[in-house]
Amino acid sequence: MKDVQSEKDKRNIFIEKVGVSSIKYPIRIMDKQNGFQNTVALVDIYVDLPSEYRGTHMSRFVEILNKHRNNMSLSNLEKILDDTKQQLRAKVAHIVLRFPYFILKKAPITKEESFMDYECAFIASKNEKFDFVLEVNVPVHLLCPCSKEISDFGAHNQRANIRVKVKMDRLVWIEEIVEMVENSASAPLYALLKRPDEKYITEKAYMNPKFVEDIVRDVSILFDKDERITYYEIEAISYESIHNHSAYAYLHRDKNSYNK
Amino acid sequence: MKDVQSEKDKRNIFIEKVGVSSIKYPIRIMDKQNGFQNTVALVDIYVDLPSEYRGTHMSRFVEILNKHRNNMSLSNLEKILDDTKQQLRAKVAHIVLRFPYFILKKAPITKEESFMDYECAFIASKNEKFDFVLEVNVPVHLLCPCSKEISDFGAHNQRANIRVKVKMDRLVWIEEIVEMVENSASAPLYALLKRPDEKYITEKAYMNPKFVEDIVRDVSILFDKDERITYYEIEAISYESIHNHSAYAYLHRDKNSYNK
Amino acid sequence: MKDVQSEKDKRNIFIEKVGVSSIKYPIRIMDKQNGFQNTVALVDIYVDLPSEYRGTHMSRFVEILNKHRNNMSLSNLEKILDDTKQQLRAKVAHIVLRFPYFILKKAPITKEESFMDYECAFIASKNEKFDFVLEVNVPVHLLCPCSKEISDFGAHNQRANIRVKVKMDRLVWIEEIVEMVENSASAPLYALLKRPDEKYITEKAYMNPKFVEDIVRDVSILFDKDERITYYEIEAISYESIHNHSAYAYLHRDKNSYNK
Amino acid sequence: MKDVQSEKDKRNIFIEKVGVSSIKYPIRIMDKQNGFQNTVALVDIYVDLPSEYRGTHMSRFVEILNKHRNNMSLSNLEKILDDTKQQLRAKVAHIVLRFPYFILKKAPITKEESFMDYECAFIASKNEKFDFVLEVNVPVHLLCPCSKEISDFGAHNQRANIRVKVKMDRLVWIEEIVEMVENSASAPLYALLKRPDEKYITEKAYMNPKFVEDIVRDVSILFDKDERITYYEIEAISYESIHNHSAYAYLHRDKNSYNK
Repeated sequence: MKDVQSEKDKRNIFIEKVGVSSIKYPIRIMDKQNGFQNTVALVDIYVDLPSEYRGTHMSRFVEILNKHRNNMSLSNLEKILDDTKQQLRAKVAHIVLRFPYFILKKAPITKEESFMDYECAFIASKNEKFDFVLEVNVPVHLLCPCSKEISDFGAHNQRANIRVKVKMDRLVWIEEIVEMVENSASAPLYALLKRPDEKYITEKAYMNPKFVEDIVRDVSILFDKDERITYYEIEAISYESIHNHSAYAYLHRDKNSYNK
Repeated sequence: MKDVQSEKDKRNIFIEKVGVSSIKYPIRIMDKQNGFQNTVALVDIYVDLPSEYRGTHMSRFVEILNKHRNNMSLSNLEKILDDTKQQLRAKVAHIVLRFPYFILKKAPITKEESFMDYECAFIASKNEKFDFVLEVNVPVHLLCPCSKEISDFGAHNQRANIRVKVKMDRLVWIEEIVEMVENSASAPLYALLKRPDEKYITEKAYMNPKFVEDIVRDVSILFDKDERITYYEIEAISYESIHNHSAYAYLHRDKNSYNK
Repeated sequence: MKDVQSEKDKRNIFIEKVGVSSIKYPIRIMDKQNGFQNTVALVDIYVDLPSEYRGTHMSRFVEILNKHRNNMSLSNLEKILDDTKQQLRAKVAHIVLRFPYFILKKAPITKEESFMDYECAFIASKNEKFDFVLEVNVPVHLLCPCSKEISDFGAHNQRANIRVKVKMDRLVWIEEIVEMVENSASAPLYALLKRPDEKYITEKAYMNPKFVEDIVRDVSILFDKDERITYYEIEAISYESIHNHSAYAYLHRDKNSYNK
Repeated sequence: MKDVQSEKDKRNIFIEKVGVSSIKYPIRIMDKQNGFQNTVALVDIYVDLPSEYRGTHMSRFVEILNKHRNNMSLSNLEKILDDTKQQLRAKVAHIVLRFPYFILKKAPITKEESFMDYECAFIASKNEKFDFVLEVNVPVHLLCPCSKEISDFGAHNQRANIRVKVKMDRLVWIEEIVEMVENSASAPLYALLKRPDEKYITEKAYMNPKFVEDIVRDVSILFDKDERITYYEIEAISYESIHNHSAYAYLHRDKNSYNK
């Protein structure tokens, strides 16, 4: 059976990424509390394609995903990328896994337990070197400092999504990232809060007003202090409760470049 | 050229709806303030298909849409459906238009003007009779009565979406529906608020706390009083600012059936 | 601490559904091949609210979800709803679980294994009686009979989503629904196909052209024959490859009503 | 009334982007066929924030948007950004407008007219220099060369989205980008096709099979030849009709850097 993909290509155009995207797959990853966690990922896997070949072999990406699905942890990603490079005879391989990650949290006063979901991504590639970015989306509570200051009572507040991307030289757990971001918010979120917890969260947020500008700066200070983190991006999107649009702030730092 | 769709079908199965869905089209509709408004709609058009035919003629739906796109107002919908029935030789025709509708609003204190967007839908069908449902999604501000009551200061609040569907026997403008829903919320939303407006909205909301249960009931009272409205559904989805999920309430009333 | 929700309400308005929506939770359900399957659900849980109470107790819904999350199977749903009714002192309880369900499939010729994802929902309620609807979304391949007939070579084809909802009086597995729908398509989909499989699927689809009208009718015939199924809805949305919109067909049958 | 945003900030952290995001607004832009076109945009506007200020003034962004909404054309974007820099006292301003753009197309044989929608974006910023990226999403028809080659008859085909981003030193119309991409596909899409058109498109696609790898290369050749284009990215996402996932290819070129 003819292999059209392996035909010689005369256009002389190198392609940076070719592969499969948006494939939904059941995976298992590491979990700080329980050893591992079952979740569902949306996966992209790509390689580069030299200018002399017409196409890549799409089915091999799915074979690789199927083979490694029970160990999609950070510690195994480099091996998966090496396997991809070898199977596809490529110089560079890329993988992106997007998945909800669940953390069992205790309500602040009653200590009742429930799971909170955090949308995370592993964004990895391997050329000569292995490159890894951990993305964590942390939904938090933000209370507006301006609204509090100018109003005789109350203050508008809302849910915000804080999306952080970090590169690290030693393991930083998703749980640690979540904790640093939640500590920089007006208050953290929980799936389950009883009335004493709701009172605590409401008052804590009122005493702790934050603009989107404040939270990106406060997370930045914590990430600067953490020596394991070498690069970061922090993006705050606040779903304003007095508008039908969002307030937004973004900053990024590359520690290597500002040490020089 | 053979017309496969017109082949005799021997399976003897009547199909209730067949047509095109999710076609994006530029349309023009009536507007209370300016006569008409240009917007962009996502459109579904369907007819019934008798058991003896294999298929419908999909291209005719797009011809009808193209012909009527400059007058997609309520007053013209019945004619569009009659045209659809005739072109497709059908007994029943259905059309759904989903579109953002913009209302120029003045900020409550400074009177600065800006547009607020409301996602609306015209859901119409014609068998013997013309049936029309107006759907309006009104984003509002809700402040939690429980949080206010149990906390020494502050109260959590958030954006909520109030989706209403109404049937009417005389014209009710989108603008009137929006006003009734916004008057039932803790506060309305605006695209543009200066500081005196923000103070006003913050304090108004704090003095006017509402559960999702409260707003569906308060809108229900206004819709009951409005004699033009013969049927309604009211759904409140509050994007809770202390959780990563929503609070929800729903009720519906058919005035014809509870008069009997 | 004051219980605002339990206040007397004087508006005299009964609310049909009140509760929490769009909460993401890790769940475990039954699986025909392996006994059980871990997945991630988006959950809504509601009860009715009598006219004399101001509000429901939102945290209890999350407690119920947390308690039952490891057994969210059909056989346990009625018990979960009874528990909800009791905890919330309600007459009616509703639950909707939306989740990706994975089936290990073998490619048709090479027999290589991979997981296919099917978006499913359990839609259940309990008043006096338990009511259950199983929704299964089956992505399939459809090849256009008209395009094949009128063209000298080739035929446009595309991915389509077939959404079915069924009520049953004895257990019908998700796997069985998927099989009936895939057998009614031009061809089924797979995550992993090698070249001999791709040849087989391409030729099979070309010999087996189907309109959206054909597939809803063909599934309808299979559902009519299956005595366990008492009610069904079949909706086909074909993401046409020659248009930027979809072709659509829908029918529903209530076997109880047409036996009478 | 106190201006909290203008408070001195002691954290000494510069913020790269701060402003409003996801605001839906009615806008008017230039159109090659008719002079201008009304559409609906989702808008982000940001500025930088010096380390010494606590926050930006969010309402001013909406004032700017409201003032310029009737002329959101490329020729006016630099002026809008200058206005933003001045109103916010910023060194850098960014704007992103995402909108559906409609082109009236004639069916290939019958010449029947209908509108096709193309999701576009203007991505602009001004520091010292004005920087502009035009993004155009062109949905096309792709027919798989491998499937055609290995099968005795037929070939799987599907809708694909080709997302291109270009920088230019003289005006390139959206209509011209669309034409270059559609000419590189197996076939273009139309909202309205009669049977003779469908036959033409089906046969054209069968004679013109393209992998995602082929289309990114063929568009690349056309963009290389066009001297107005100085930089481009080309991304192909093919919604495979034999899988429930996509095939993907991406390349980018900066003409300035490869001339050196």
